[in-house]
Amino acid sequence: MNQSTHVNRQITLAARPNGAPTPNDFKLVESPVPTPSSGEILLRTLYLSLDPYMRGRMSDAKSYADPVGIGEVMVGGSICRVEVSNHADYVQGDLVVAFGGWQDYSVSDGVGVIKLDKAMPNPSYGLGVLGMPGLTAYMGLLDIGAPQVGETVVVAAATGAVGSLVGQIAKLKGCTVVGIAGGQEKCDYAVNELGFDACIDHRSTGLEEQLAQACPAGIDIYYENVGGKVFDAVLPLLNTKARVPLCGLISQYNATALPAGPDRIGLLMGNILVKRIKMQGFIVFDDYGHRYSEFQEAMVPWLMSGQIKYKEDKVLGLENAVSSFIGLLQGDNFGKLVVQVGPEQIDFGAKS
Amino acid sequence: MNQSTHVNRQITLAARPNGAPTPNDFKLVESPVPTPSSGEILLRTLYLSLDPYMRGRMSDAKSYADPVGIGEVMVGGSICRVEVSNHADYVQGDLVVAFGGWQDYSVSDGVGVIKLDKAMPNPSYGLGVLGMPGLTAYMGLLDIGAPQVGETVVVAAATGAVGSLVGQIAKLKGCTVVGIAGGQEKCDYAVNELGFDACIDHRSTGLEEQLAQACPAGIDIYYENVGGKVFDAVLPLLNTKARVPLCGLISQYNATALPAGPDRIGLLMGNILVKRIKMQGFIVFDDYGHRYSEFQEAMVPWLMSGQIKYKEDKVLGLENAVSSFIGLLQGDNFGKLVVQVGPEQIDFGAKS
Repeated sequence: MNQSTHVNRQITLAARPNGAPTPNDFKLVESPVPTPSSGEILLRTLYLSLDPYMRGRMSDAKSYADPVGIGEVMVGGSICRVEVSNHADYVQGDLVVAFGGWQDYSVSDGVGVIKLDKAMPNPSYGLGVLGMPGLTAYMGLLDIGAPQVGETVVVAAATGAVGSLVGQIAKLKGCTVVGIAGGQEKCDYAVNELGFDACIDHRSTGLEEQLAQACPAGIDIYYENVGGKVFDAVLPLLNTKARVPLCGLISQYNATALPAGPDRIGLLMGNILVKRIKMQGFIVFDDYGHRYSEFQEAMVPWLMSGQIKYKEDKVLGLENAVSSFIGLLQGDNFGKLVVQVGPEQIDFGAKS
Repeated sequence: MNQSTHVNRQITLAARPNGAPTPNDFKLVESPVPTPSSGEILLRTLYLSLDPYMRGRMSDAKSYADPVGIGEVMVGGSICRVEVSNHADYVQGDLVVAFGGWQDYSVSDGVGVIKLDKAMPNPSYGLGVLGMPGLTAYMGLLDIGAPQVGETVVVAAATGAVGSLVGQIAKLKGCTVVGIAGGQEKCDYAVNELGFDACIDHRSTGLEEQLAQACPAGIDIYYENVGGKVFDAVLPLLNTKARVPLCGLISQYNATALPAGPDRIGLLMGNILVKRIKMQGFIVFDDYGHRYSEFQEAMVPWLMSGQIKYKEDKVLGLENAVSSFIGLLQGDNFGKLVVQVGPEQIDFGAKS
């Protein structure tokens, strides 16, 4: 199903999921292409980013951002082309990073919209290594984690958008890096392509023993993006003065109730006390948005020189966003998940 | 039972407690007064500090410090008088802060020993407001908590050695301060004498509702020294970007097993993530010992001017250390608990 110039396909939230989202929690609707008012731009979505945090927006539990309302378009970062501009800062054909959501067209007043260089070879990288996941990896690791040469860094979802960058940046900073990923293929990729020192398949048996073996000097930084049984295996290995940047907890996003006891809230706090651990949550754009240029100055050369490798899991067609997102929460993706919403060949120079 | 010049009364660890310590876990023994070798000093204990962390030393669970061995003298900070000096830096009659333990006499090579001004009006303050508890309150609040004018600070054990100082320093920094303490008498003292804005009796009913009412703008800093049901009441009130310096968890020191479920380890981590909380444990001398003079320069004037008030709970006689320590873990003390081990009238100028 191709992008049309006169219909706006939109994926809306049909129901709040109870546990893992199902296709019935979403609805594909067709609307007219919106018309930008004065001071606004019409954006056509070329690429849509799918990220675990979107699961949080589907729930109405109190969180750092408002939930998506029932019947509203699912939110999400996107790479878009300016189709119509009534805004002084934009002209038709401009390529931008925006928060256009799960739809073909959106209207923006320019707030939060970032222009991209049209000569950029891979515009979709603006949703990953050069965008929110990249900044998340960079700031969480360097600002909260503060890695020192020779320290041991552990990161889960090791081939995902964030984890793959955390591990590679930690290697560049002189750390020993141990990844955790789902399946042997991902683990091989983390070690052979990304240069991790080791990677453990959490689907195999003996995660705790394997992790202890891979971290003979304990763990100095655990970049947390999954929680659950991975954290359980990490906790006893954390060293004195360990740092735990808390970026995500994908393993519990679909949970409908707290797990059975015993209650380990005091056990965790006891460990934080006795080992003098720092655990700190962060939301990347709120906490670090003002340091984007510092990140970009480091990351672009790393990427150009091949010191940082980046893998995309590119899905074709907005109609496949729902199944891809459901799979993302189960770890089905291999690399940064993006949906190509616009046409295969994008003529960035021509008028629409 | 008075201090003798020829017998060294020692309180040793007789057994590792199962739950709350009982008198049978300790043993009072008499030994000869030790003889200092070359480079050593003989110390006579005048005051012994009793602190909650000592409960940890009675267990053999892995911690930041080695446990006390069975049959060994219980450890503890003390104010001592130098009785014999074979060390170039000390003369007989010097007053020092040392780590002499639960006994009348100890020998030291001077490492970790700090000389006190003999003109100091209350030498036992070196175990409290001007010593380890003072530095703990000051650094945990200011360095990890980083209070800003107008923020809300909550501290439990509000009339204890650390809590009373945390609250008063927070008031000096322009914060709203809410204490939690056991009993109306302590709460009245926190508000009327220490200047807290409110203080809640955790023995009364409705802790959660009372705390919510006392903190209408939420909690920005929770200085944690108790854990348990107090933390449960605090957690939902923590604001975005709240800081939780983790100093102690007295409510769980006597626990023999984890509490019943559900398991809230993920709930806590979810809160840290979504609210971008920083929770950080610290051990005061390891992390902040090098900043003692900075602390002293602030605290001495506060104390002299009456801006900081300090209350001691002084117990007479080493033989009462055990029952006082057991009471400390139940919150029986009112103010900083110290045991006067030496004579009531100490002639700091005369030779022994």
